[in-house]
Amino acid sequence: MKSDTIATDMASLSSESYKGARDWYPADMRVREYIFAKWRSVARSFGYQAYDAPLLEPLEVYAAKSGQELVNEQTYQFTDRGDRRVAIRPEMTPSVSRMIAARRQETPLPARWYSIAQFMRYERPQRGREREFWQLNVDIFGAEGAPAEAEIIEMGATIMKSFGARSDMYVIRINNRKVINYMMAQYLELEPTQAQMMIKLFDRKNKIAPEAFRDQAIDIFGADKSKQGLQKIAQLLAAKSMADLPEALRDSEAVREVQELFTYLERAGIKNATFDITLMRGLDYYTGTVFEFFDTHPENNRSLFGGGRYDGLVGMFGAEPLTAVGTAPGLTMMQLFLEAHGLLPEIMPYTQVCMIILGSATLGAAKLAQDLRAGGVAVEVDFTDRKIDKKLKAAIKKQIPYILFVGEDDLKAGVYPLKNVQTAEEQRLSAERIISYLSDRRRS
Amino acid sequence: MKSDTIATDMASLSSESYKGARDWYPADMRVREYIFAKWRSVARSFGYQAYDAPLLEPLEVYAAKSGQELVNEQTYQFTDRGDRRVAIRPEMTPSVSRMIAARRQETPLPARWYSIAQFMRYERPQRGREREFWQLNVDIFGAEGAPAEAEIIEMGATIMKSFGARSDMYVIRINNRKVINYMMAQYLELEPTQAQMMIKLFDRKNKIAPEAFRDQAIDIFGADKSKQGLQKIAQLLAAKSMADLPEALRDSEAVREVQELFTYLERAGIKNATFDITLMRGLDYYTGTVFEFFDTHPENNRSLFGGGRYDGLVGMFGAEPLTAVGTAPGLTMMQLFLEAHGLLPEIMPYTQVCMIILGSATLGAAKLAQDLRAGGVAVEVDFTDRKIDKKLKAAIKKQIPYILFVGEDDLKAGVYPLKNVQTAEEQRLSAERIISYLSDRRRS
Repeated sequence: MKSDTIATDMASLSSESYKGARDWYPADMRVREYIFAKWRSVARSFGYQAYDAPLLEPLEVYAAKSGQELVNEQTYQFTDRGDRRVAIRPEMTPSVSRMIAARRQETPLPARWYSIAQFMRYERPQRGREREFWQLNVDIFGAEGAPAEAEIIEMGATIMKSFGARSDMYVIRINNRKVINYMMAQYLELEPTQAQMMIKLFDRKNKIAPEAFRDQAIDIFGADKSKQGLQKIAQLLAAKSMADLPEALRDSEAVREVQELFTYLERAGIKNATFDITLMRGLDYYTGTVFEFFDTHPENNRSLFGGGRYDGLVGMFGAEPLTAVGTAPGLTMMQLFLEAHGLLPEIMPYTQVCMIILGSATLGAAKLAQDLRAGGVAVEVDFTDRKIDKKLKAAIKKQIPYILFVGEDDLKAGVYPLKNVQTAEEQRLSAERIISYLSDRRRS
Repeated sequence: MKSDTIATDMASLSSESYKGARDWYPADMRVREYIFAKWRSVARSFGYQAYDAPLLEPLEVYAAKSGQELVNEQTYQFTDRGDRRVAIRPEMTPSVSRMIAARRQETPLPARWYSIAQFMRYERPQRGREREFWQLNVDIFGAEGAPAEAEIIEMGATIMKSFGARSDMYVIRINNRKVINYMMAQYLELEPTQAQMMIKLFDRKNKIAPEAFRDQAIDIFGADKSKQGLQKIAQLLAAKSMADLPEALRDSEAVREVQELFTYLERAGIKNATFDITLMRGLDYYTGTVFEFFDTHPENNRSLFGGGRYDGLVGMFGAEPLTAVGTAPGLTMMQLFLEAHGLLPEIMPYTQVCMIILGSATLGAAKLAQDLRAGGVAVEVDFTDRKIDKKLKAAIKKQIPYILFVGEDDLKAGVYPLKNVQTAEEQRLSAERIISYLSDRRRS
C-alpha cells in the first residue's frame, strides 16, 4: 500500500523529457494538430485511405533496403522479452510495403494510402532534427509511370499551398535513379562499387567543402581516370536543365522518363520543379524518380521532404512485386518552413467558455454545462474554491475567449452574464442564446 | 547501388506484423478514427487541451509508482545508444505528471489535458489485450474533491453516450483508496504488508475461484485470526450499497467522501454508478476515488476502463505536489463494447469520386481533378492502363460511391457522366454542379 506515501520521501525524479524527444504542451500541440489537419485534408482530397503500422518491426526489415547508416547507427533496436530482435520504426516505407504484400491479392489497385505517425532515429539532436519525429506518408501502390509520380509531387505542392505557401518559397528538385545509374555506369564509366561511393558523395555534396568533394571524387575515380572524370562531373554540375546535359545522357531512355514527368507537372500547374542531376536521396530502395522539396528562404535553405519511386520493396516480403511511389513530409521541417515564411497563424484553444462558478452553485450548474456542451459549445467549468480574480486570471491565461459567471441567482433566472474577454463586453443570455451566439464564433 | 536488385534474389522477409501488434488496414483504421474522433470531441467539449509526451521515458519513472508487475514483467525496456535505461511508455499518467511538474508554475490551474496515444506492454496477446494499444487519457490537475472526480466520470459517461450506449449497457463501479486503507487497517485489522497482499487478492477476486480466494485470505490473516477475518470479508462482499456496510466503516470520513461524489454524479444525471467495496484498481499510485466502467453485456462482461485520483505523482518530479484525477479509455475495449452492443456503424471511406480516365485524357483531366478537390470533393483518379471493367471493379471494391468517367470529348464539352454506384443512376454534370451535388452527400 503506497497510497499514503508522501512523494517528498523519495529522491525526486527528473522532470525533463527523454533527450531528443519533445514534450508537447498544449500550445505546441495545437501547431502540430494544425499541420496534421492540413496533411490529412489534402491526403483525403486525393482519395488516400488512412492506415497505420506497428511501432516495432523486425530489424531485418530495415537491414534489407534502408541503408547501412540508418540501420547500424540510427535505429533504436533491442531484443524483446520473447527474444525477437526488433527496431522502433525509423521510417514507414518498409512497414507499408509489408502490409501491402500481406494483402497483395485482396487489395484493390492502385492502392492510395496515407498515415501520420511517429518514428525514432538515434541522431545527434539539432535544429530541425529530433530523435522522435512525425511524418505524413503518402504512397501509391500499383500505378506505373509519370502520372503516379506527378500525383505524389502534386500532393506535396498542394500541401504547401494549403498552408499558404507561394511557389517561389520552395523549389522541387527532381532526378531519377535510372538517370543516376546510367550516368555512373555509361557516362562516368564507374564500376558498381565506385558508383555507389560516388552516389554517396553526390548526396553529401552540399554538406562538405568543394575541396573535400574534389579530393574524394579523385579517390573514387583513381589517379589515371580522375582528370577526365572531374571534367565530366564539372559539366554535369553546370547543367541547369535537362537541355544542358551532355548529349550521351540527354538521349537516354531514363532522361526521357524525366521529361515525361515534367510534362505532367506542367499540366498540374507546377512551375517550380527543376531537374537536378546531383539529387540522390539517401535511401537505398529508390528505383526511379526521386525528388525533394527544398526551402528557398535564405535563412532556412534546406531540404523539406523528399520521396520517389521504389519498385522493389513489396516483392521483398514474398509477394508478387508491385510498383510504388511515395513521399513523407515531416512535422519539424514543415514547422520550420512555416515559421521562416511567417505562415504559421496563432492557433487558439478550442475551449470557448470558462464557466466560473460563484458561491456554491457547482451542483446546480451541472445541467447548464451539459446543455451548452450538447449545443456544441466547448465549456470548461471552474468549480475551484478560489477567489474570482484568481479564476479570471487562469481563464485568461488559458486564452479562453468567453467567461460565463454562474451563481445561484443566475440559475434561478435562467440567464447568465457572458463576458467577452477581449472586448470586456458583457451580455445576459439564456443557455439557448449562448449556444446560437457562440456557434458562429467557433473554431473549426 | 541496389536500385536494380531484384527482390526475389533474396530470401523473402515475413509479411506478418510484430506479435501482439496490429496492422491497421484502411477499414480497421476507419473504426479507430471513428472512436478517436468521438473521444476528441468529448474531451474538447469539456474544455480539455490536447498534449502528447515522448514514446520513451526513463525506466525509473514507472519503477517508482506504477507497480511491480508492470515494470518487471510488462515494460518494453532497453538501453539506448547513449547508455540510458528507457522504457516504451506502458501508460501515460507518469509522463503527463512529469510534464505538469516541469511547468508547475507557468501552468494555469486547474489544468485539463487530454491525449490520444499509443502504448506498449509485453503481455500475453489475447482477445481485448494487445501488446501495442491506444488510449485516451483525460486528467485534471489542481482540482480537489468530488466535483473534479465527478467531471472525469461524467466524461466517461458522455463518451459512452456519444457512441449511442444506453446507461443499462454498462455500470460504473466506484470505490476509494482511503476507504480501502481504512477497511484494511481499522476494520480487518491488518498490518501494512498484510493489507497490501489483501488488496492484490481483492483485485484478483473475479479472476480466481472462490476456494482459492478463501485459501489465500486465510494465509494472509494467519490461522488465529482467519475465522473472524473471513466473516468480516463475507459481510463486506454482501454489501450492495454503502448503507449495507458495517457501521464501523459507514461512519468513516473516507466513506463520506464517496457519498459526496455520488451526490455530484446524481446531479449530472448518472444513474448507473454503484459503490463497490471490492474494487481496487491495480496501479499503486491511486490515493482517493477509484472507478471502473464495466460492460454488462453477458458476452462481454468485463472492465472497459478505469481511473481515479492520484495526488502523489506530480510531486515525485521535484515540483510542489498537485492533486490530480484522470481516466483512460482504451481503443480495443471500446471497440469490443461497441461490437457487443451492435453500436458500431459501417464507416465508409472519405473518397467520394473515382475519376476513371478514358483513353488518353489523363493530362487533360488534371485541371478537372484540381477544381473538384478545391471544391471539397475527395477525388481519386484512376489513370491506369487497364480495361474499364477492371477500373470499375477496383472503385467498387474501394467502396467509392460515385464514378466520374472522363474522356477527351467530356473535357471538351465540360460536362461529365457521374454515376452513383449503388443506384446505377447517371447524370451529366459540370464541375461546378458536381461540387454542389456532392457537398450535401459528404462524410463529416
